[in-house]
Amino acid sequence: MSDAELDVVGVGNAIVDVVVRTSDEFLARHGLTKGAMRLIDEDQARALYTAMAPAVETSGGSAANTMAGVASLGGKPAYIGRVRQDQLGEIFCHDLRAIGVHFAVPPAPDGPSTARCLILVTPDAQRTMNTYLGACVNLCPEDLDEALLRRGKILYLEGYLWDRPQAKLAFLHAARVAAAAGRQVALSLSDSFCVDRHRESFLELVRDHVDILFANEAEIMSLYRSDSFEHAASQARAHTRLAALTRGAKGSVLLSAHEEVEIAAEPVTRVVDTTGAGDLYAAGVLFGMTRGHSLREAGKRGAIAAAEVISHFGARPETSLSELTRRAALG
Amino acid sequence: MSDAELDVVGVGNAIVDVVVRTSDEFLARHGLTKGAMRLIDEDQARALYTAMAPAVETSGGSAANTMAGVASLGGKPAYIGRVRQDQLGEIFCHDLRAIGVHFAVPPAPDGPSTARCLILVTPDAQRTMNTYLGACVNLCPEDLDEALLRRGKILYLEGYLWDRPQAKLAFLHAARVAAAAGRQVALSLSDSFCVDRHRESFLELVRDHVDILFANEAEIMSLYRSDSFEHAASQARAHTRLAALTRGAKGSVLLSAHEEVEIAAEPVTRVVDTTGAGDLYAAGVLFGMTRGHSLREAGKRGAIAAAEVISHFGARPETSLSELTRRAALG
Repeated sequence: MSDAELDVVGVGNAIVDVVVRTSDEFLARHGLTKGAMRLIDEDQARALYTAMAPAVETSGGSAANTMAGVASLGGKPAYIGRVRQDQLGEIFCHDLRAIGVHFAVPPAPDGPSTARCLILVTPDAQRTMNTYLGACVNLCPEDLDEALLRRGKILYLEGYLWDRPQAKLAFLHAARVAAAAGRQVALSLSDSFCVDRHRESFLELVRDHVDILFANEAEIMSLYRSDSFEHAASQARAHTRLAALTRGAKGSVLLSAHEEVEIAAEPVTRVVDTTGAGDLYAAGVLFGMTRGHSLREAGKRGAIAAAEVISHFGARPETSLSELTRRAALG
Repeated sequence: MSDAELDVVGVGNAIVDVVVRTSDEFLARHGLTKGAMRLIDEDQARALYTAMAPAVETSGGSAANTMAGVASLGGKPAYIGRVRQDQLGEIFCHDLRAIGVHFAVPPAPDGPSTARCLILVTPDAQRTMNTYLGACVNLCPEDLDEALLRRGKILYLEGYLWDRPQAKLAFLHAARVAAAAGRQVALSLSDSFCVDRHRESFLELVRDHVDILFANEAEIMSLYRSDSFEHAASQARAHTRLAALTRGAKGSVLLSAHEEVEIAAEPVTRVVDTTGAGDLYAAGVLFGMTRGHSLREAGKRGAIAAAEVISHFGARPETSLSELTRRAALG
């Protein structure tokens, strides 16, 4: 790969999704909280998988989904994350490269296997995620190619990484390298339970290192321990250059120092699986930011990308997003 | 598992499908024949996979899809096939057991990896299959649990097995064991190019060992080297107890010594991916035969099962087929 500038460099947990349609009753029987992500160990993964109906395997991982979205929109993304040298690792690498994401971290020759997320999709299209982190936990500061980090206009980090001390160090290191090179740092809060687990350090991170913050209603209200979305949003606005906050079917709001823009959700004939909605929304906004688009245009691009991904099974775009946005006259 | 009677025991190539949407131009560029199945080696598989867009992984294998269909219809199927002890092998085993198919062949601890079929789906919903047989080639007569073969009312064999000398021996052995136990033997011809490769031995097999024959138009016309479907069908009728012949959108025809029944194709809102159409049609007919249904009712069940599987991506049912047939007042 040449040394040309990249649009976004994403750092995250490299995961293969194991997606299955299930019932509310199944969630209840296994004591699972609908809509949340929980970390499980290998034994728990095996037990839950055994109980599950036939599934479909497809590449996932929050930041990786976002980078796939940036590529599909016509941007130049790169990804940093850890897989093991195994069949699922090969699938993950193939799918990322095939959509046009630069990905050069060598797969680990030994250690835990490639990460899996058992995603249970209920009839209401909500997804409940059970993640076995596997090889992801070995992401360490040495994995970060500093030259690569400096080449992205924006560095994009997923909050889920915060769950692993090693990865957290890698994460902070990446943020410092990018900032020192005059790049913007973006963070997605990922999950309200993840925010709960790490509220204080997330607050510090947002205040000290984050230029662009992505969160949904539950996450931003959890971060600021607030019952009011408006109050939490105004806090986020004060702490960042841009806060892009999603509100499900209510759309999203983008807040910068000088501007506040509301974006309606794109209409969808049938919501099939909400996995990846936030990831793809972030892809649209990030792509817009790298191209100097207005907040309204960037937000609209995010809404279109999110609408595409929730209209089918799986967390990566199935249709060319650059084609979809062209049709919406976004150029 | 108890010694209770089983409905159908299927023997086939245990394969994980790697499914991707592609263009006619991609097929042309790689010299692929649309609608056909070709065997590829590991190097060819790697080269084609590298050139492919992001894919979705899902369990497949012709006879395995049929057994999954029998289970979904409410029947009791078992499966015999070979996977390697690897991640794709684990996925294959899980998906088969999770839908209710008895599957007890231990995964091979070494040797070639679990089989993959790179399935290219063009916008016209046709699938073009590229199979790396991997661990399948190690299926041998010793793998066949004779007690299990005797427990199925019908033994179901896929024609694709005929491509491997070892598997062919296993296949003939299974047919003899089942016949000696007074069971019926069913065969699916699988692919017209497969029939071309083995015409003479297929003809011998059909005449000497097969009670129920499944084929589509191209396959049956190739088997009898005939330009006329009617002529080929009458030959098949003379050589078997039941010939169940599919004709795509034109439906199917079931021919026994005393009866000839035409079944219309079930209407489908949008044909998405024809992978598994023949496999699921066979499931409906086989299930009907084990329950003593009329040819018309068995054929209708096949049509419903085929319609379900072509209305989505992937070769296994996503909806309960027993539920679907109940709604169609087939009980």
